[in-house]
Amino acid sequence: MPGGRRAHTGAFFEDFRLGRRILHATPRTFTDGDCSLYIALTGARQVQHSARPVAWALGYRDRPLDDLLVFNMAFGRTVHDISLNAIANLGYADARFCAPCYAGDTLRAESEVIGLKQNSSGRSGVVYVRSSAFNQDGELVLTWVRWVMVPKRNLEAPAPGTVVPELPPSVAVDRLSIPSFLDASKFDTAATGSSALWEDYQPGERIDHASGMTIEESDHMLATRLYQNTARLHFDALATRDSQFGRRLVYGGHVISVCRALSYEGLENVLSIAAINSGGHVGPVVAGDTLYAASEVREKWTLPGRADLAALRLRLLGLKNLPAARLASPRGGDGGYDPHVVLDLDYTVLMPRRGPR
Amino acid sequence: MPGGRRAHTGAFFEDFRLGRRILHATPRTFTDGDCSLYIALTGARQVQHSARPVAWALGYRDRPLDDLLVFNMAFGRTVHDISLNAIANLGYADARFCAPCYAGDTLRAESEVIGLKQNSSGRSGVVYVRSSAFNQDGELVLTWVRWVMVPKRNLEAPAPGTVVPELPPSVAVDRLSIPSFLDASKFDTAATGSSALWEDYQPGERIDHASGMTIEESDHMLATRLYQNTARLHFDALATRDSQFGRRLVYGGHVISVCRALSYEGLENVLSIAAINSGGHVGPVVAGDTLYAASEVREKWTLPGRADLAALRLRLLGLKNLPAARLASPRGGDGGYDPHVVLDLDYTVLMPRRGPR
Amino acid sequence: MPGGRRAHTGAFFEDFRLGRRILHATPRTFTDGDCSLYIALTGARQVQHSARPVAWALGYRDRPLDDLLVFNMAFGRTVHDISLNAIANLGYADARFCAPCYAGDTLRAESEVIGLKQNSSGRSGVVYVRSSAFNQDGELVLTWVRWVMVPKRNLEAPAPGTVVPELPPSVAVDRLSIPSFLDASKFDTAATGSSALWEDYQPGERIDHASGMTIEESDHMLATRLYQNTARLHFDALATRDSQFGRRLVYGGHVISVCRALSYEGLENVLSIAAINSGGHVGPVVAGDTLYAASEVREKWTLPGRADLAALRLRLLGLKNLPAARLASPRGGDGGYDPHVVLDLDYTVLMPRRGPR
Repeated sequence: MPGGRRAHTGAFFEDFRLGRRILHATPRTFTDGDCSLYIALTGARQVQHSARPVAWALGYRDRPLDDLLVFNMAFGRTVHDISLNAIANLGYADARFCAPCYAGDTLRAESEVIGLKQNSSGRSGVVYVRSSAFNQDGELVLTWVRWVMVPKRNLEAPAPGTVVPELPPSVAVDRLSIPSFLDASKFDTAATGSSALWEDYQPGERIDHASGMTIEESDHMLATRLYQNTARLHFDALATRDSQFGRRLVYGGHVISVCRALSYEGLENVLSIAAINSGGHVGPVVAGDTLYAASEVREKWTLPGRADLAALRLRLLGLKNLPAARLASPRGGDGGYDPHVVLDLDYTVLMPRRGPR
Repeated sequence: MPGGRRAHTGAFFEDFRLGRRILHATPRTFTDGDCSLYIALTGARQVQHSARPVAWALGYRDRPLDDLLVFNMAFGRTVHDISLNAIANLGYADARFCAPCYAGDTLRAESEVIGLKQNSSGRSGVVYVRSSAFNQDGELVLTWVRWVMVPKRNLEAPAPGTVVPELPPSVAVDRLSIPSFLDASKFDTAATGSSALWEDYQPGERIDHASGMTIEESDHMLATRLYQNTARLHFDALATRDSQFGRRLVYGGHVISVCRALSYEGLENVLSIAAINSGGHVGPVVAGDTLYAASEVREKWTLPGRADLAALRLRLLGLKNLPAARLASPRGGDGGYDPHVVLDLDYTVLMPRRGPR
Repeated sequence: MPGGRRAHTGAFFEDFRLGRRILHATPRTFTDGDCSLYIALTGARQVQHSARPVAWALGYRDRPLDDLLVFNMAFGRTVHDISLNAIANLGYADARFCAPCYAGDTLRAESEVIGLKQNSSGRSGVVYVRSSAFNQDGELVLTWVRWVMVPKRNLEAPAPGTVVPELPPSVAVDRLSIPSFLDASKFDTAATGSSALWEDYQPGERIDHASGMTIEESDHMLATRLYQNTARLHFDALATRDSQFGRRLVYGGHVISVCRALSYEGLENVLSIAAINSGGHVGPVVAGDTLYAASEVREKWTLPGRADLAALRLRLLGLKNLPAARLASPRGGDGGYDPHVVLDLDYTVLMPRRGPR
């Protein structure tokens, strides 16, 4: 019984060629079950995802799915082809949320290789991809760039020419997608209990969110399987015993979702995520770690033609095993990150304005 | 980077004033996903919640949601304002289930402070609130009284006048809400496999339910997040390390749900919970504990104008780490509870009658 | 307070009589929530269950439920009456999937005792049952035979006459149910990313699936509760402490589901499970075990009148704590199973044909 001719071992660095376009498998129909699980897995409370009447009042045809549920589900489509073998998920940039998703919508994804850079060791390389997710009508729902470090299969394979894509430090205001039907003047802050609107946030302000969440093996595996993300390092305790960390790692997208849910208090009236500007996972998370979150306001932007809402550029810091209020600075003494920091994400949200309307 | 101006630290004793009315945030639309999760988290088997045709035969327009799913979801709305800081959840009383809930319904909740009593230590006080949950049509779904012990922020703050509300020992028969459309004569006991109806239960009878359920950290956290209950002591292993119990506590509502599911065998033909008369959490539950349940029949009531169904007043005892059959009495030697008892709940259910009809 | 007159202790060997027909309790309506949970619990990726448009293209009226979700849910109905007391779940045979199930369908189940054989010890016996599950229209969805070892309540009770049903080694091709509406010529392999169709598999071929999945207590209990399977040995850490294995056992149906999900890579284009021919659980699984899977192609069958699809008879081997590629043979030195093998399942799937069409 000869084994394994079909055993998929993931893509290696030399499998990626600049400009290659990959249609990812396994389209996925969202359901209300996904929404309930997302709440159960993260504790998300953003009210437009929680209550249908709130969504209707804003102009949505149903509860829109949590932006990060959509992100993680789209990301899950890409893992098999892009990062099954990844040594590290190095960063995200230029992610734009282009259209709301609803239960019943079906997501598919594709990616294009937009950059390649072999590492000086010759043992691995960095692959840059732009991935995009579409709904059943072919409408672009989400597009993002990420880059991953992938090992070479054959160390003798020649290095490709180095191409590193130019990525904007943040998604410019005029590239944000604001649904034309969305009417934030109808947003009732009684539904969140917070009266803090766009005008109440100032660049430089930091919010230390008080809540913490301890991660269990079941939790992160349930989430990662829900997204049909198959990367083995999240699931296989035996295989990861001999890895760098000696155990399963928590999928980074689950860390983002939990940290974002932890950051709810103080940012209650966020309407949606419009962009992820940059950032990434700067430290590993394993079961047993307790996550905390801090937010910083980086910039404030009005939006052309919109008196009802405006944009905030935020930084979301995810911490492990240190409450946010006890983090003096995300930087450690050596110029790198404080070892408690696991996530540093720069993103842009929409928020109702108080102004004349 | 000065931290935390928005960090919500929960309400303290002196924040509660008699008669204050609190509109709770975060309305929540129920979905079929919540029902599936509720079954997966508790093992609930009550047939009218499990099978749509059974519910239709009884006159419901769809599967009604499990009463305790509704209770926990409503309770979850209130935590942020009432009990985020609670030292102890002391008791429940006068809870009435007034209208069935269905997937698609949206729940919101409000509370009124109906009693205050500073503790003799001067360090904390007991707050009594009546909370009520409404559906999207403004219909009252559920109302209940609970009282919690809350610390004082400022020990120098003057004590309020003591007001302790008078609470009925049980919800009187004429205050029970029986849906007018409900026709229990259509209940088919083949769907439960038990022929025991209202006539078959006698006051004084005790049922030692045989099943046990061991609680895991993931289970109780999933349940508690599903209800968007944010009390930190359920989630943060780091912060609770220095607490009285040294670890996360299981949310009491999850204990009620699990014990009720464990009590299914012997009470298969319960149609719905009509009231929670009184009771509460008399011992802490932590992950690793195995829960068991015993039921006692306290009273039997016919209902005016109803030949098809009647009411049973039950006592549900939740035990940890001791099978129900091995509990001689819920009272320990010193007059307090046996240390295995974690829940003592007095509640009223509706059950079909065998009588002439 | 005398305890327990209603305490259900499960059926014993002498409770089963040949020909006895048992109508199982607790019908269950499937929902989209069950589908999401099934994906989250197993990581299933079969595309016709994942994406509605793929199912529509094949002729289904909605996403059909995963065959093993239906199997486990049907099985769950039977546990209370058949196997609550089972010492061992010995095997399955002649299982036929007769009609697709969809969210909204309600399943009920019944069983007939078709064989009895007291063990030579006189302390227990083997009970053979044929169980069948029906939807709300009375349509047969699934039927299967299983046999379980059950203790005697009264060792003095006389042994029944031995009747061992004759079971086919596999479900014959002409007994497979192929939905008449199903049109596999419309299957688009882009949705799975694999071009391997029926023609590409050869008897004798073995596929060592690379992925592994570590089982947690929460995971298997969530799954088992979702199916409303109440067998105590899966849930009660205290009661199982004194059992043979000293701890909770993972429900075998969850093991089948996980191993089948692990076997996805290499069998991406399976349309559905048509039959489980034989097999069973040959070793216990407990939380902490890491599961792996290997598949062997046993037979290939064309189907009369169908040019669009054909059948593959497969063997699914589930392993614990040993990657499939490292298993030389499922047999150990002594003629029994290698101790890593936990599941040996012979089943038949439908797969699109490449042939002229």
